[in-house]
Amino acid sequence: MKVISVLGSTGSIGTNTLKLVAEFPKDFRIAGLCAGKNVELLALQTEETCPEIVSSGDEKTSAELQSLLRLRGYPMAKTRFVCGVDGHIEVARHPESDIVLSAISGAAGLLPTYRALESGKSIALANKEVMVMAGELMTRIAEAKKLPILPVDSEHNAIHQCLRGGRKDEVRRLILTASGGPFRNTPRERFDSITPAEALDHPTWNMGRKITIDSATLMNKGLEVIEAARLFGFPAGAISVIVHPQSVIHSMVEFLDGSMLAQLGVTDMRLPIQYALTYPERWTTPLERLDIYKQPILEFFEPDMEKFPCLGLAYKALAVGGVAPAVLNAANEIAVEAFLNEKLAFAEIPRVIEAALNAHTPEAADDLDVILRADAWARKEAMLGIRNLGIRN
Amino acid sequence: MKVISVLGSTGSIGTNTLKLVAEFPKDFRIAGLCAGKNVELLALQTEETCPEIVSSGDEKTSAELQSLLRLRGYPMAKTRFVCGVDGHIEVARHPESDIVLSAISGAAGLLPTYRALESGKSIALANKEVMVMAGELMTRIAEAKKLPILPVDSEHNAIHQCLRGGRKDEVRRLILTASGGPFRNTPRERFDSITPAEALDHPTWNMGRKITIDSATLMNKGLEVIEAARLFGFPAGAISVIVHPQSVIHSMVEFLDGSMLAQLGVTDMRLPIQYALTYPERWTTPLERLDIYKQPILEFFEPDMEKFPCLGLAYKALAVGGVAPAVLNAANEIAVEAFLNEKLAFAEIPRVIEAALNAHTPEAADDLDVILRADAWARKEAMLGIRNLGIRN
Repeated sequence: MKVISVLGSTGSIGTNTLKLVAEFPKDFRIAGLCAGKNVELLALQTEETCPEIVSSGDEKTSAELQSLLRLRGYPMAKTRFVCGVDGHIEVARHPESDIVLSAISGAAGLLPTYRALESGKSIALANKEVMVMAGELMTRIAEAKKLPILPVDSEHNAIHQCLRGGRKDEVRRLILTASGGPFRNTPRERFDSITPAEALDHPTWNMGRKITIDSATLMNKGLEVIEAARLFGFPAGAISVIVHPQSVIHSMVEFLDGSMLAQLGVTDMRLPIQYALTYPERWTTPLERLDIYKQPILEFFEPDMEKFPCLGLAYKALAVGGVAPAVLNAANEIAVEAFLNEKLAFAEIPRVIEAALNAHTPEAADDLDVILRADAWARKEAMLGIRNLGIRN
Repeated sequence: MKVISVLGSTGSIGTNTLKLVAEFPKDFRIAGLCAGKNVELLALQTEETCPEIVSSGDEKTSAELQSLLRLRGYPMAKTRFVCGVDGHIEVARHPESDIVLSAISGAAGLLPTYRALESGKSIALANKEVMVMAGELMTRIAEAKKLPILPVDSEHNAIHQCLRGGRKDEVRRLILTASGGPFRNTPRERFDSITPAEALDHPTWNMGRKITIDSATLMNKGLEVIEAARLFGFPAGAISVIVHPQSVIHSMVEFLDGSMLAQLGVTDMRLPIQYALTYPERWTTPLERLDIYKQPILEFFEPDMEKFPCLGLAYKALAVGGVAPAVLNAANEIAVEAFLNEKLAFAEIPRVIEAALNAHTPEAADDLDVILRADAWARKEAMLGIRNLGIRN
């Protein structure tokens, strides 16, 4: 029996995780849940999994959750209700759980995930910002405590699988596949007029809003390059990105001897979630299997670095190192939010990020406080940049 | 330093092996060579590798070889010259070598390879007939002596690599890719008039004549299904064939959790040869690497079992087991030879094989004599079948 706490249980990864857990009632148990504002769904999940501890966004949502559950006759004594960042950290460190599935999106996921690892939990990682912002720190703790950080992201999960085909020093490069996003074939001169609605219409994966925009700018792939560098310990030069619109091959590894191993599967997040939760074992999937005949043609293209400058910015931040990836990530979060609120044009997203990156003071990222300070600085800097662009326009 | 004997050194696998060995002069050394009639090339190879022992087809070729080498000033005392099956077996068992690369094509490769394994050599196996005819026997000896049989065949080599991604009991199926051969799109009614010249024109791999015809009938893939069953210990139902004309994916493994791992690479036999000779390590390839952008579209089709009955016959022989695969293989060798000599129509190849398969007496294949008897019987039976067809036509 594997005991799991889910950070970010009401998001798309969280709900898929709970669906999967429900498929294996004898093998998985939920010890803790943690979510933000979606009280209705969190109540339902609490009823279904009966966890030891549940954390929600703040005191108000926690009170709402509890009254809702009481009303429905939930055995309240079974669960402790907490809230906010401290509550999330309590869930992350709860003594009952072996594995913490980290799926709070964005920088908010960092602290709880970090505390979970610190307190000896295995991490199934769906939040890429954790490794982008504090990858070196996380890896150091994981190595010292001999704890796995298993990627749930389909690309890194694929790479984790392909890396089983050889030793680390036998790897030439990691190859992350990218769907290319909805604007792969859109001419560059149209980029200024791209609307949030257009950008949210992703061809392959069904994801949250922020990550869908990141997928449209290729920043998602850029963050994945940084995540891969941290997770697997490879330099920027050993990580390539390849556009593969069908998303059937989830990523690849090229070895020194010229062999490439690729992982293929259906585009269902439950597949990498299951791999991360059952590793080093593989369990029979309850899901539909990949029918390669139904997806008969696989294509590969080079990414257009000029049309998608965010990818190049991520490589640049990785090369600079230290807090630069945290700055990149924070500025991107702010820029994407501004774009979604129609305060920033699509083509201006990379400009805001680049300005923040150019203005930041390089510093080693070996302390959480330093990282969080850089994150806060970059947010302000990006907001300032957006305001100035607004004035200029 | 790995010391290698090459059985079948003048064939396409043999010459590629020697090319590869020459690339790593500090890591590989040749102890023995063995070939048939190509005295000129064997002399050249002997000069280049200066092995302890060289075997050629018979006394005549051995005498020719020696006089040729003497003429060229080769230091004759360095090498012992032997010939025929006994000579080949001496090369296979030579005490200096650690690894025997088995690349004598057809049933003739069985005895030397078997003797090599029996005398404690690791096997790098390019001859599929060894496993088709005596797979159970070979596997039993390999397991008892804890010796690896490493496949050089690109498909099985790919599967060997993909299997590193999980435990054997976590595998759902092996998926062998097939180029589909030159007649994938040829209408069935044209099959009776296919000439040897047409069949020898293979689109992707540059191989010997026999295997090229097998590739055109899909019998090559059928033999590979049997080889895979024996090498990796899976039943017929757990081995699929998929037509993939680009031959970029060399084969795949599907795991119980829905993940598929695929191996990709250039279509150069030196890649799997190197893997087999360096396993469990991977060495930096001296070859050109796969440029996935130059091969941008990958396609997958179901094999047409009606147009290519040889594939179904192989599955049938595997299901019957015992000596049936040896009968299938022997009858096929005779039928292909007859086709190449324009004594048999292309479409009649499977008919000859099926008749032999239907007429054979099932028997366990746990003894080399039994297998060789079945092989000899099937050859006669197939010749008889071809003669009868000739009379009837």
